[in-house]
Amino acid sequence: MEKLHVDNALIKQFRAWFEQPDGETLRVQLLQMYPQDIAAVIDRLKNDEARLVMNALHKEVVVKVLVEMDEEARESFLSAYSPYEIANEFIENMDSDDATYVLNHFPNNVKEEVISQLQDLEYASSLLDLISYEEETAGSLMAVELVKVNQNWTVAQCIEEIRLQAENVDTIFVVYVVDELERLLGFITLKNLILSAPEKSITDVFNKEVISVPTSAHMEEVANITKKYDLVAIPVVDPLGRLVGRITIDDVVDLIKEEADEDYQLMSGITEDVDSTDKVWILSRARLPWLLIGLLGGIASSRILGVYENQIMIHPEMAFFIPLIAAMGGNVGVQSSAIVVQGLANDTLGTLNIGQKILKEIRVALLNGIICSAFILAYNISFNHSYELAVTVSIALLTVIIFASVFGTFIPLFLNRLKIDPAIATGPFITTSNDLLGIVIYFSIGRLLYTL
Amino acid sequence: MEKLHVDNALIKQFRAWFEQPDGETLRVQLLQMYPQDIAAVIDRLKNDEARLVMNALHKEVVVKVLVEMDEEARESFLSAYSPYEIANEFIENMDSDDATYVLNHFPNNVKEEVISQLQDLEYASSLLDLISYEEETAGSLMAVELVKVNQNWTVAQCIEEIRLQAENVDTIFVVYVVDELERLLGFITLKNLILSAPEKSITDVFNKEVISVPTSAHMEEVANITKKYDLVAIPVVDPLGRLVGRITIDDVVDLIKEEADEDYQLMSGITEDVDSTDKVWILSRARLPWLLIGLLGGIASSRILGVYENQIMIHPEMAFFIPLIAAMGGNVGVQSSAIVVQGLANDTLGTLNIGQKILKEIRVALLNGIICSAFILAYNISFNHSYELAVTVSIALLTVIIFASVFGTFIPLFLNRLKIDPAIATGPFITTSNDLLGIVIYFSIGRLLYTL
Repeated sequence: MEKLHVDNALIKQFRAWFEQPDGETLRVQLLQMYPQDIAAVIDRLKNDEARLVMNALHKEVVVKVLVEMDEEARESFLSAYSPYEIANEFIENMDSDDATYVLNHFPNNVKEEVISQLQDLEYASSLLDLISYEEETAGSLMAVELVKVNQNWTVAQCIEEIRLQAENVDTIFVVYVVDELERLLGFITLKNLILSAPEKSITDVFNKEVISVPTSAHMEEVANITKKYDLVAIPVVDPLGRLVGRITIDDVVDLIKEEADEDYQLMSGITEDVDSTDKVWILSRARLPWLLIGLLGGIASSRILGVYENQIMIHPEMAFFIPLIAAMGGNVGVQSSAIVVQGLANDTLGTLNIGQKILKEIRVALLNGIICSAFILAYNISFNHSYELAVTVSIALLTVIIFASVFGTFIPLFLNRLKIDPAIATGPFITTSNDLLGIVIYFSIGRLLYTL
Repeated sequence: MEKLHVDNALIKQFRAWFEQPDGETLRVQLLQMYPQDIAAVIDRLKNDEARLVMNALHKEVVVKVLVEMDEEARESFLSAYSPYEIANEFIENMDSDDATYVLNHFPNNVKEEVISQLQDLEYASSLLDLISYEEETAGSLMAVELVKVNQNWTVAQCIEEIRLQAENVDTIFVVYVVDELERLLGFITLKNLILSAPEKSITDVFNKEVISVPTSAHMEEVANITKKYDLVAIPVVDPLGRLVGRITIDDVVDLIKEEADEDYQLMSGITEDVDSTDKVWILSRARLPWLLIGLLGGIASSRILGVYENQIMIHPEMAFFIPLIAAMGGNVGVQSSAIVVQGLANDTLGTLNIGQKILKEIRVALLNGIICSAFILAYNISFNHSYELAVTVSIALLTVIIFASVFGTFIPLFLNRLKIDPAIATGPFITTSNDLLGIVIYFSIGRLLYTL
């Protein structure tokens, strides 16, 4: 097999293979491709072409491709099947975490209809449990497929259990050790299992330093723990301490990446997960909401400036520094909020309370504000602007920097308290509100100084 | 052991334990902690306190803590040791990837001095190879510790090899299969090894579908491949196809997180990796460069506006919409560049060439621009602004949105061509230049329309 770069040339080749009546070349080529690459090809094909590819694949590859492909492509592929077929041809052959992932993209009634059609009742019952966990929790992300052994077994019995479960559990990593009540006691790595004498008791060889998460743990916590302790799989336990599933590192990696991408998009004012291959109207829709909010902010600032119309007419030079004041407020606000948002996500906020954090932020703001204000004061005085203007700009800048820092720090912390994703506080939201704030401060100080 | 939340209370407890003359409580407590948590505690202790903790730890734990702790704390801890001691007490006991990581934080001459003092010559030679790879490539990230077997061996021989290497290689995951010339042929999972008869030949049981990266692969590529193909470890091969090392998933997870954090910070105008627990002047230093650039941008826009002083005096209402035009240019620019930067990082840019991408971007911009311009036109006409102003604002807004989109798309693509991190094009850079652009467009159109 080779890993492929899916480009226009490859898609063209596929279209040529579709033309061949016996489909032999297509089948041979697909045999040499990874499911991830096949999914990437399908994402770029038309509906009926995608179906030609899927029909040429082995059943066990089809389900892997299904999990990897875009939601839209999957939906339109599955729309040709009845709930019974979806259940017993596709869901049945997936690992439980993949099945849950696919099912959770269906509407609620379809989800349950499909599960109820499954012929494997035990599996159906597992899936019913899995879809009932709250989204983005460990319970909703875990797979129930794992190898567990009783602490009183021998190494040989444990290896026999692996043999029995081998078909169900693709990647094993470690074998979990439980007591009679299924409570998680520890684990044993395959390496230790290989190196232990077959007649030894598991009790003597297993590792009791096991890190687990409860089913209710939020996915961010799961990701942070997995990352911090360098785990390849993390067992999930119910409130009674019983082992109910595990989350493997590949899913955690996807989580970490998704979370990071989401924060990045929120900061840049994009509301949906889009990439540049999406259609024009989807890209447009993802970007319009923040632009409209920015527009409302702009209208609000035009009204505030309207209040100062006379002042601008008499001192048009005051208008020269509107962009500077607005931009600096925005920049400082984004910096402050970004540090808080990252700190919340990475659990590195430290132990200061909100008041102490804001005090510290004010110290940073004072330092940077004084430097920036001094710089602009020196510039304005050397370039012949009036004394009033020079002082107004500098005092306004310092004030804006301090206010923007405080808001930038406070708002994400506050949103987080309310259990709202603090990342929405970054980007356009902070920029827009700091624009307004900056203009009010600037013109209030200006009016005061010019009338003195 | 228990995973801990490192907070003020825990640090206070540690300080109480330091007071006890025999240090027994400290030792007992440390025995129950993970190296990652000990490192987190040390990062918050004073230098001499950190030393008390390190002295109370077992040697093998000391090196794990060393790798996990902050660079500054590590540096100051190691400064008390000679190169000989650093080499044979610490580096010697680390995995080669951890050793390379620690060594690469030293100046070049110290790095080589330390390696030359190692008593284990073979290890010294490996490390010398590893530090010679370019930073952020697979070669510089890999560990040389791995288990490899010849394709002609039996399963039993393979298990014997695991036994021999068990002490050197902590986590095995898979055993790599090579030919007589050490060229990578494939791998076999521990699960398959356990399930295969001992007398079987490796040739009959190993998996030939192996995905590897060359030593020169950039870490972003390593991360993308590992993530895409759900790998837990990726073998690294030299230009002759020989297996020279492997990169494990825990390091890839750190890479992905670091890259994402870096992009996020660049977008928010923060130049160093800081978090809110850092000192005030470090936080200030990380934020000041972009603020000064923003300040220069602000000065530039004040000079541009100076050109239009008369126009502002006659039509002060034109100043009302300066913040709107500037902010919208900034917002659109950030959106466009963010999509490109993410596309480059995730390898999801698709196959359009630069010209086609910009054309597509213009279509998105036209759609959003027309909606926004129509909206603001309706507002301005209903709120009694003059016809000239209303038309000026709308035409300027549409033009700015289109220009900002094109710049936001082009600049990161262009930087990427020059092998410069495109993420620096996002955030304050785009915002500042689009502010300037917006003002020029707005007042040029205004002058034109008012004089018609």
